[in-house]
Amino acid sequence: MSIHKARLGWLWKDAAALELDAALVTAAPNVRYLTGFTGSNGMVLLTGRGATLLTDPRYTLQAKAETAGSGVKVIIAKGPLEAALTPRLKKLKRVGFENNRVQYRAWEHLQRSLPLSASLKPLGAVIEQRRMVKSAEEIAAIRESVNINSQAFAAALTRFRAGMTETDLAAEIEYQMRLLGADKPAFDTIVAYRKNSALPHARPGGARIDGNGLLLIDMGTFRGGYASDMTRCIHLGKAGAKTRNLYQAVLEAQLAGVDAVAPGVSASEIDAVTRRVLRKHGLDKAFVHSTGHGLGLEIHEAPRLGKTDKTSLQAGMAITIEPGAYIDGSGGVRVEDTVLVTPTGVEILTPTAKELVIL
Amino acid sequence: MSIHKARLGWLWKDAAALELDAALVTAAPNVRYLTGFTGSNGMVLLTGRGATLLTDPRYTLQAKAETAGSGVKVIIAKGPLEAALTPRLKKLKRVGFENNRVQYRAWEHLQRSLPLSASLKPLGAVIEQRRMVKSAEEIAAIRESVNINSQAFAAALTRFRAGMTETDLAAEIEYQMRLLGADKPAFDTIVAYRKNSALPHARPGGARIDGNGLLLIDMGTFRGGYASDMTRCIHLGKAGAKTRNLYQAVLEAQLAGVDAVAPGVSASEIDAVTRRVLRKHGLDKAFVHSTGHGLGLEIHEAPRLGKTDKTSLQAGMAITIEPGAYIDGSGGVRVEDTVLVTPTGVEILTPTAKELVIL
Repeated sequence: MSIHKARLGWLWKDAAALELDAALVTAAPNVRYLTGFTGSNGMVLLTGRGATLLTDPRYTLQAKAETAGSGVKVIIAKGPLEAALTPRLKKLKRVGFENNRVQYRAWEHLQRSLPLSASLKPLGAVIEQRRMVKSAEEIAAIRESVNINSQAFAAALTRFRAGMTETDLAAEIEYQMRLLGADKPAFDTIVAYRKNSALPHARPGGARIDGNGLLLIDMGTFRGGYASDMTRCIHLGKAGAKTRNLYQAVLEAQLAGVDAVAPGVSASEIDAVTRRVLRKHGLDKAFVHSTGHGLGLEIHEAPRLGKTDKTSLQAGMAITIEPGAYIDGSGGVRVEDTVLVTPTGVEILTPTAKELVIL
Repeated sequence: MSIHKARLGWLWKDAAALELDAALVTAAPNVRYLTGFTGSNGMVLLTGRGATLLTDPRYTLQAKAETAGSGVKVIIAKGPLEAALTPRLKKLKRVGFENNRVQYRAWEHLQRSLPLSASLKPLGAVIEQRRMVKSAEEIAAIRESVNINSQAFAAALTRFRAGMTETDLAAEIEYQMRLLGADKPAFDTIVAYRKNSALPHARPGGARIDGNGLLLIDMGTFRGGYASDMTRCIHLGKAGAKTRNLYQAVLEAQLAGVDAVAPGVSASEIDAVTRRVLRKHGLDKAFVHSTGHGLGLEIHEAPRLGKTDKTSLQAGMAITIEPGAYIDGSGGVRVEDTVLVTPTGVEILTPTAKELVIL
């Protein structure tokens, strides 16, 4: 049985548990997960009679090729997909919709196009919950993505020359990713020098990477549709004691976080572990984001390794561990690996070393 | 008066016309347009007492720097932005929301957090309508983006070597964009060789660009936040009569479309013009998308140059003109420029020549 048939089977089971007679899936990563279709405009209607993918004429050839073997029926809609959907909703009573994903406007349209006898019911995160635990094929894809990402980091560093701007180095990193076979960067690459590194979501700019200072690089690739994510810090010239201490504290927090990963541990416990280490160093207030996140077909997936997510980690989950500490006007440090929850604990997928590199 | 103050003034006027006592803006490009804030998580509440930007601690420094001079008050929310918003909604009665943009979940949350005396009212496309006509500064930014895009195309072609894969060439194009100062590609660059060019939204793959065949490149950059968009076709080796005829037909449609652009002409009329030319050549069924779209802070903005959009073109609108024809299993052609509607007609911003390049 194809993986897509199996996933549609899961969804049908989840839908039945919610007493639904149909599930409507519109979020692109969920459509891809369920059917293999990678186009930007698609909708899956799953009923007792099987799954139908609706898309537009731009994807006529692609939709048929990508869904081959999944048992999914492809409908090419000339106008808005919702219009082609309406006649298919006729005999349905309880239609599940992606309440966490759908646009208000799409919901409103759907609401209007439903027969009087039918109603929309929240699907919640049923697909996202299933997606948290990766199949062997998905783990292989993430592994490949992680490896390409680390190779691109190494290749870009060999091409680094003092005086390059943040933007130049980001361009170099993304170019190397692509040459190594990445689909594209998984997010806007962060290259942040000196005080820019204190902005957790800094964008590379015209600042020249020269002289003595801390350089933060946060990069990820999509490869075969799957994401990787890594952050490393580099120091140009000799690092002062203050910077070395900051780096060591964050690294200690990251190692402790990774170490705590195991099946049965909750996402929020991992977050608490990294926060505890940073508190010990007086840096808890300087850590302004959560410890990590799941990743897969999206760069940010469930679970969220933050204060409130009680999700119990399971073997097969791919997550990031990325504590950081940011000192306004001075600089920031973050250390991030992509790791896999294994039956016995954790495997660090990211092969790049974590000592503070001195360039 | 700062441009952001002026835009917030426009919005307040539009909100007053809808009898609203507040407008809540959550779509990132609209937040940026109104306040200058470029972070990924922001919300603007505009009331009679002024504008407030809510964002999270990652953006503390950035939000203050980017909104300086706009009169916008910045609030850093520790938890979800909606929670920080709730107390600010207390005395309001009619709160405008972005019904075309907001997520169902955000709407639901907002609905719940409103005081009993208040209700949500659709803002519709009031901001998007204003955004269609660009200011002099925005036109300058688009012009720069378009020029960088064309320079990157030329630079990548000089580095082209037969035997490169589609992916390699896409990597080269995006690298050149970045080196020339682009923020990032405006969308996934399309490099499609031979039969892949028949897929209007092809993704570059491992196909080697070698021997004799048609190569389609669709590329755009963001620069200073503003988009550009261009498609060109290249032929490796001598092109056969069939390909040359296909190319000439699409080029004729494109030139006719550009020529028809002028203030007062409707978006759908431009679409009808290109379609008419393609019909004359028996290619109307091979043209499976619309003729073009507005662009600016987003790669796809209003108006849509398709069959149904009756928007009257106005001086200051930046749009693409991009008819195409796609022959399954054989190949496709698209020719696309970014153009500006001027008081007297049209200016083609894209400087790249449009003859079928023979490599």
